[in-house]
Amino acid sequence: MGTRRNILLDCDPGIDDAIALCLAAAHPEAFRLLGITTVAGNQTIEKVTENALRLSEFLGLHAPVARGARTPVIREPLTASGIHGKNGLGDVLFPRTTAEPVKESAVLFMRNRIMELPPKEKVTLVAIGPLTNVGLLLKACPEVRERILEIVVMGGASTGGNVTSNAEFNIYEDPEGAAMVFLSGLPLVMCGLDVTEKCGLDREDMELLLQRGGRVSEKIGKMLQFYLDSPGYRSKKAASIHDAVTFMYLLHPEIFQGEKMYVQVDCSRGISRGATVCDRRSGAPGQELPVLVLLDADTEKFREYLLEGIFSLDEKKEL
Amino acid sequence: MGTRRNILLDCDPGIDDAIALCLAAAHPEAFRLLGITTVAGNQTIEKVTENALRLSEFLGLHAPVARGARTPVIREPLTASGIHGKNGLGDVLFPRTTAEPVKESAVLFMRNRIMELPPKEKVTLVAIGPLTNVGLLLKACPEVRERILEIVVMGGASTGGNVTSNAEFNIYEDPEGAAMVFLSGLPLVMCGLDVTEKCGLDREDMELLLQRGGRVSEKIGKMLQFYLDSPGYRSKKAASIHDAVTFMYLLHPEIFQGEKMYVQVDCSRGISRGATVCDRRSGAPGQELPVLVLLDADTEKFREYLLEGIFSLDEKKEL
Amino acid sequence: MGTRRNILLDCDPGIDDAIALCLAAAHPEAFRLLGITTVAGNQTIEKVTENALRLSEFLGLHAPVARGARTPVIREPLTASGIHGKNGLGDVLFPRTTAEPVKESAVLFMRNRIMELPPKEKVTLVAIGPLTNVGLLLKACPEVRERILEIVVMGGASTGGNVTSNAEFNIYEDPEGAAMVFLSGLPLVMCGLDVTEKCGLDREDMELLLQRGGRVSEKIGKMLQFYLDSPGYRSKKAASIHDAVTFMYLLHPEIFQGEKMYVQVDCSRGISRGATVCDRRSGAPGQELPVLVLLDADTEKFREYLLEGIFSLDEKKEL
Amino acid sequence: MGTRRNILLDCDPGIDDAIALCLAAAHPEAFRLLGITTVAGNQTIEKVTENALRLSEFLGLHAPVARGARTPVIREPLTASGIHGKNGLGDVLFPRTTAEPVKESAVLFMRNRIMELPPKEKVTLVAIGPLTNVGLLLKACPEVRERILEIVVMGGASTGGNVTSNAEFNIYEDPEGAAMVFLSGLPLVMCGLDVTEKCGLDREDMELLLQRGGRVSEKIGKMLQFYLDSPGYRSKKAASIHDAVTFMYLLHPEIFQGEKMYVQVDCSRGISRGATVCDRRSGAPGQELPVLVLLDADTEKFREYLLEGIFSLDEKKEL
Repeated sequence: MGTRRNILLDCDPGIDDAIALCLAAAHPEAFRLLGITTVAGNQTIEKVTENALRLSEFLGLHAPVARGARTPVIREPLTASGIHGKNGLGDVLFPRTTAEPVKESAVLFMRNRIMELPPKEKVTLVAIGPLTNVGLLLKACPEVRERILEIVVMGGASTGGNVTSNAEFNIYEDPEGAAMVFLSGLPLVMCGLDVTEKCGLDREDMELLLQRGGRVSEKIGKMLQFYLDSPGYRSKKAASIHDAVTFMYLLHPEIFQGEKMYVQVDCSRGISRGATVCDRRSGAPGQELPVLVLLDADTEKFREYLLEGIFSLDEKKEL
Repeated sequence: MGTRRNILLDCDPGIDDAIALCLAAAHPEAFRLLGITTVAGNQTIEKVTENALRLSEFLGLHAPVARGARTPVIREPLTASGIHGKNGLGDVLFPRTTAEPVKESAVLFMRNRIMELPPKEKVTLVAIGPLTNVGLLLKACPEVRERILEIVVMGGASTGGNVTSNAEFNIYEDPEGAAMVFLSGLPLVMCGLDVTEKCGLDREDMELLLQRGGRVSEKIGKMLQFYLDSPGYRSKKAASIHDAVTFMYLLHPEIFQGEKMYVQVDCSRGISRGATVCDRRSGAPGQELPVLVLLDADTEKFREYLLEGIFSLDEKKEL
Repeated sequence: MGTRRNILLDCDPGIDDAIALCLAAAHPEAFRLLGITTVAGNQTIEKVTENALRLSEFLGLHAPVARGARTPVIREPLTASGIHGKNGLGDVLFPRTTAEPVKESAVLFMRNRIMELPPKEKVTLVAIGPLTNVGLLLKACPEVRERILEIVVMGGASTGGNVTSNAEFNIYEDPEGAAMVFLSGLPLVMCGLDVTEKCGLDREDMELLLQRGGRVSEKIGKMLQFYLDSPGYRSKKAASIHDAVTFMYLLHPEIFQGEKMYVQVDCSRGISRGATVCDRRSGAPGQELPVLVLLDADTEKFREYLLEGIFSLDEKKEL
Repeated sequence: MGTRRNILLDCDPGIDDAIALCLAAAHPEAFRLLGITTVAGNQTIEKVTENALRLSEFLGLHAPVARGARTPVIREPLTASGIHGKNGLGDVLFPRTTAEPVKESAVLFMRNRIMELPPKEKVTLVAIGPLTNVGLLLKACPEVRERILEIVVMGGASTGGNVTSNAEFNIYEDPEGAAMVFLSGLPLVMCGLDVTEKCGLDREDMELLLQRGGRVSEKIGKMLQFYLDSPGYRSKKAASIHDAVTFMYLLHPEIFQGEKMYVQVDCSRGISRGATVCDRRSGAPGQELPVLVLLDADTEKFREYLLEGIFSLDEKKEL
């Protein structure tokens, strides 16, 4: 990747959020993590914030954590506790921490971290939860726009959904927040179900992680087990690690294929609410720049690089 | 195909409607055409009814024609005169006729033709325009339900659209009409853009038709030329003959592949209005039976059988 | 009123439907009831059809009854059994009947009754249930349009609702059906909550009816008691007899005030679904003629005329 | 009113915004204006910001001005230049100013002014444009919630609209922004069309203002003339001074009547988009506190107090 990227991570951990954080932690040469903001999604804002604090410490990231939106821009929040367990991390316990979120709330935290960067530096936003915080940031603080290099989102799908017939969870949870991001006109990479459902870890990988029994690999192995044993996954061969696709794309863009498309978020109250309507033709209203929609990946490389990253965290002496 | 099918054809001719009619006319051994009903769509109700009358006579079908809906169930009508020309038939002229539509309007006409069939006979509805008439028939005259063998629709798409990013013309034109059909719980085959965009005729086929110069082939060749010369098609290799896919499927189901899916019509006022949301998983609300969604075809066979059908009409002595 | 009106009544009895039928029965000099069609609403189609048959016989109307729509144009049906009881008539029992609905379903029945009228006669449609049947009739059988004098609807509200904040039950139950009626461009009188909530009978009237103890008045008294004792009504002084406002308006237009307005039915999937949006200014799209929206009534006269009508039925020797 | 209120004013001047500012300027004993934020609405963000700067100086307010949202939360902006003229102030010229907006954008400006107040002090938000800035503030900076005394909004209507049949301009312009405010659960006063259409100035008032010819009254007189001469107003007796109702309510609550209601903003894409659906019954989803909806006013007192305020500004020596 050459230079180290300034990263702000917006997340709702979440099992696959945790694995995404591993990937960020495993590559300090690539990522300078300025901070973590949280958003209600996979679990309540209290639980995902506590999870972010524990993960940040456990993985030696020591990044400041700012609490973000408790509810979407307009609707009441859903949670995905059926998928991510009561604690949001497959009921796998991470060491307690005395760390506290910073005083600033998420939007202001992101805004201030961005604006205090040296004049020529830019930031990459990685957003792996509902897009409430990021959408609000872009609309409420327009001064950050020219300091954003790109926004890498886990969310959406060019075809099919996982909450309704055509909506993916992160977008369905806050279509208005997502619309603020997709209408922003900033450079955007969409890691949607098209690619993330192909990027998984299977029972063999789980065994590898559990047998290794390292400090980090064991936890990830157990969370993966929770995923693979849950009713929704039992029939599938592998568990998709949706959120990790974002950092993997930043580390290894060469293993992904995608296409530039015009993307609109369906904010209606109809059956397509929360769908990301993707169009190869130009001319979707209100959009200056097409979005890079990832569509395929070298899934073997994805597994290999992801496991390598997790294993490397076991070795780390000083956390 | 074994037995001859009773057919009611609902249409809005339209160039590809005309070619679909050729296919019906070319196979009297397969189709017993009880009548033709018209619906505003490719052109106004006056023009498409006049076209249906002229085509019925020109192709020797001599089927009664009943005038149908002037406007969709709720919205004002669009027309597609940019694609089908001012007269709806690529401005190709067919001989005038003194024939008149029957007195019954389309819904009552269909209802009466169905109910007067001998007790054990059933009818196949072929619908290649907006679904206003057919939707109204199914809701207004529930007695016809048990006399319907299946409904073969040209409309919709499991992914992508041709009017908006995800809506196809016939469904977009009257989503409420379409919803009445898709929620009817009757056996349904959807010939949507997934398959119809693959079923085309190209400039070489056009030359074949024009050079042959038969009574029917010449007209079809000229209409095809109008299609291929229109701005929307100029860059494409072939012109899709959407509507003919319905009759071709009835004649040669073996050249098509499809999948059973649950299909909902988006009747919201949002950006996805008119989309047919297709889901392989069970459980789309309100639907007892999944729809057979055609997805692929042997396109060479399609061309071959279609041209054969048109050529055979040139030979017919007695029209 | 001068001449006798030809009436087709579309209903979903329903306590207030039953009282409306009393008013029709009490005034044979004003109304020539051609038939009764039923629609799912206050109860299932089976129950409301059975109720219509019994009421027709009990009140000596002997009008043919045709079964109509089981479900709205698009959605699944609601019922209002909490308000109208398990049998739809406040659990008040009416004598069984051996009468059966006619073979024709409701839309065709209405169409045929209208078209067989002598050439210069017209019909008044009185619609006091969801507008499924009437909407389908107007769209499916355009030939009836010029034979309709006016349509008098119980439904909607210019402000406020009784199912949601701004939707009234009959319209909310089938907004698409209602839209077909309101967009028809035919002369329309809307008896909405603005006026019907002012037109009620109270406990004193109930006592009068019960004490009188006539053949009809006793039944009505008991149904009224069911209404007034139900949780939704207990706090109110009077029970609105919504549906009777339609016939009362035809008998005594002089006791009502109204205003011509442009009315649109909200068919969105948002919070205003089913609202009748009324505008005094011209220019609501798609509407040639404004609707007469009743807004106020002389409520004392309403009570007086209504009780008179019911009492007169007790006297009738020959039913 | 007793104590002096801390005020943050969010506006889009606009003629009636200018008159509202007069009222604020005329009552320094009641209002401590912490700052003015601007939002696109009556005109583009550039024009309304320039207008705010000039008015602040001209009226001796010397309040800092922060530029706010260029577009609504989701849609593209409308402007109302037909009503407010090309410069947004009825083409009445105010002296140029060298003043510049502050560096902070509107949301951050409001947030910082609120958070730097002494611990026990609170702020009143007066919002007389589309609710983009205020909605974003409340969602993006939850820390301000407990420092807000109340929010007084010009916008909405409990019945009828002025852009569509049931939507008022400020809410229609940004329904999602408005929904963030109405769902906030903070104490809210809605000065909607119910009351603001009754609060006007007429030609006689215009003459009074023009004849007086004071420094301020002359400008206001000319703007009023622009209003009264515009096609939309020509037939009406008086021009509504919508935005001034907010400050008048804070000065003289005794001249207004209102009712607590549950208010939902219609964010659908249907015909009711932008309507404020008001319900006297409890239970509108997501709302802890009902909104005080103003419904009526002593319009003579309104005129008297408003003219008094404007005249008093003519007297001011030191601006």
